[in-house]
Amino acid sequence: MIPKEHYRWVWDTPNTEEYFEVVKKIALAQRMAFNTDFILSKIIGDEVEHAHIWVYPNKEVSGDKMDFEGNLKLIKENL
Amino acid sequence: MIPKEHYRWVWDTPNTEEYFEVVKKIALAQRMAFNTDFILSKIIGDEVEHAHIWVYPNKEVSGDKMDFEGNLKLIKENL
Repeated sequence: MIPKEHYRWVWDTPNTEEYFEVVKKIALAQRMAFNTDFILSKIIGDEVEHAHIWVYPNKEVSGDKMDFEGNLKLIKENL
Repeated sequence: MIPKEHYRWVWDTPNTEEYFEVVKKIALAQRMAFNTDFILSKIIGDEVEHAHIWVYPNKEVSGDKMDFEGNLKLIKENL
């Protein structure tokens, strides 16, 4: 998840609370979408020079992680 | 960082916004304490069965990561 405006690091965003709120919303939707309680989130930051937060289910979930459209649909349905 | 009350997962906490606010506060203090912009944060969750969020500087920073008391003091001074 990335902000539309450019900030180098997550910690530089002025509205980090809202950013994290959306992270939680997506995490809760992923729980429903992938039928698991175990959702991971990582803030690292040197992969791309733009603030970004990883949110993804654990690797035990069934399904195809390369099916971006199908997974997006599942997540959207559970928002 | 762990909440005092027990919740199995970070996503189960009722006041996740406040939890994340404290994460940001600690991350900003670590930036000052360890003189780096690059602070990582991870929500994984299967290491301990209690909600917890990792917050720590990148490995290029100088200092001794085993010096818990000294590092705590540095972080507190920069809160």
